[in-house]
Amino acid sequence: MSGLSLSLYAVPGIPLIVPGDDLSKIIFENIEKSEFVLADNDIIVVAQKIVSKAEGRIIDLESVTPGNEAKRIAKIADKDPRQVELILQESNEIIRCKEGVIIVEHRSGIVMANAGIDHSNVGAPENGEFVSLLPEDSNVSATDLRTKLQHKSNRQLGLIINDSVGRAWRVGTVGLAIGSSGILPIRDLRGDKDLFGQVLRVSETADADALACAACILMGEAADASPVVIIRGHELHQGEEDTNSLIRSKQDDMFR
Amino acid sequence: MSGLSLSLYAVPGIPLIVPGDDLSKIIFENIEKSEFVLADNDIIVVAQKIVSKAEGRIIDLESVTPGNEAKRIAKIADKDPRQVELILQESNEIIRCKEGVIIVEHRSGIVMANAGIDHSNVGAPENGEFVSLLPEDSNVSATDLRTKLQHKSNRQLGLIINDSVGRAWRVGTVGLAIGSSGILPIRDLRGDKDLFGQVLRVSETADADALACAACILMGEAADASPVVIIRGHELHQGEEDTNSLIRSKQDDMFR
Repeated sequence: MSGLSLSLYAVPGIPLIVPGDDLSKIIFENIEKSEFVLADNDIIVVAQKIVSKAEGRIIDLESVTPGNEAKRIAKIADKDPRQVELILQESNEIIRCKEGVIIVEHRSGIVMANAGIDHSNVGAPENGEFVSLLPEDSNVSATDLRTKLQHKSNRQLGLIINDSVGRAWRVGTVGLAIGSSGILPIRDLRGDKDLFGQVLRVSETADADALACAACILMGEAADASPVVIIRGHELHQGEEDTNSLIRSKQDDMFR
Repeated sequence: MSGLSLSLYAVPGIPLIVPGDDLSKIIFENIEKSEFVLADNDIIVVAQKIVSKAEGRIIDLESVTPGNEAKRIAKIADKDPRQVELILQESNEIIRCKEGVIIVEHRSGIVMANAGIDHSNVGAPENGEFVSLLPEDSNVSATDLRTKLQHKSNRQLGLIINDSVGRAWRVGTVGLAIGSSGILPIRDLRGDKDLFGQVLRVSETADADALACAACILMGEAADASPVVIIRGHELHQGEEDTNSLIRSKQDDMFR
């Protein structure tokens, strides 16, 4: 008997990305150079960091002047006031703050630490102290990348931009979908029946996050980073939904 | 150039599991019947529901008498007081409660809704109203299953027991590792260097949860459920760590 399968493939050879790079061109050319041949329904997962860098969303901390609020919070969190200034600019509200951690609602509505701002893989230290911000709108970036990659490959594709994030009650980071295009972010099984014919009570699965999480396993965080992963075996979806539908509304939030 | 890859395969033909079933035998025989050939380093992910059923961790709600505390909370949550009684018995503490939702710290330390108790795929309605509880100790169950499957297959394997859970700020469920054996639950990259030679500041990746999450994509929740998934392409680990290391300590918890 034959089972369902899903396969993930890290695209080798993606170079360091710098502001202004044509990311779709770089991704497509490196897939072409690899042993992998794109097919309809493939989903391409792209690490937030390289999207941010290509879009020029990196900032030299030396250019940032922290305000009084940033200075006050920086003391509580024991963080660089310039980085806190950027966190405040990128956030709708601060949700929790203690030494080492600032949990915010990012402009996009995503609840996360430090508004997704970080230092790693951003630049060589001799050139200044650079940090990356999330893309201006990750769903717009996902749609743009998907459109260009579909055009280049002549294939129907899905696209996810992922980031690695911490969680309230678990140690360690996992992948999260911060932008998507061409896939159904949430599969709604409510009303479907279980193995005994009973109607399922609560079942919406966060497929975009699960795919983002799976891709993170191959991506790595350190110098072996592989920022582009192709997933084969999951269905595409031609609707308009994006990762905004994965954000729990504030009135349903029990933890802020 | 050749990239890293990861592949997932849902084992077909797993029958309905009933209390007392020899789960390792059933899993092994169905892998043997499939087109898949186990290899060293394969990780087998098993859905909590079938582990609970094989271990007899299912209860007819008709046999449960709710106490006063269960009745009180059932009113707030608009839930069956008998199910709330079981939730209380299975939990260390209630963390949040509102209509439709009871968030607890399960006996195992895992923070989750309803102590992991649910109705779906547990039994035919004409036989009573059954619910399943989590295994007595999912890490012990994972070790037991892994030992038996290694013996039968003569392969070095990893094993994860997963469940699907909700999250504080996101819509939809994702997979979580509630028990594991033979894999490193958390990869610690702190001290590793990034692409520019800078030391990474915060980077522990929750690999067991990510693998559990990836497997959930293939498992399904409804009548097409595939409760056993094999993952190939991730390293095993011979240490003693299990999913207890993924639980954030109460003193580090900012959200209770």
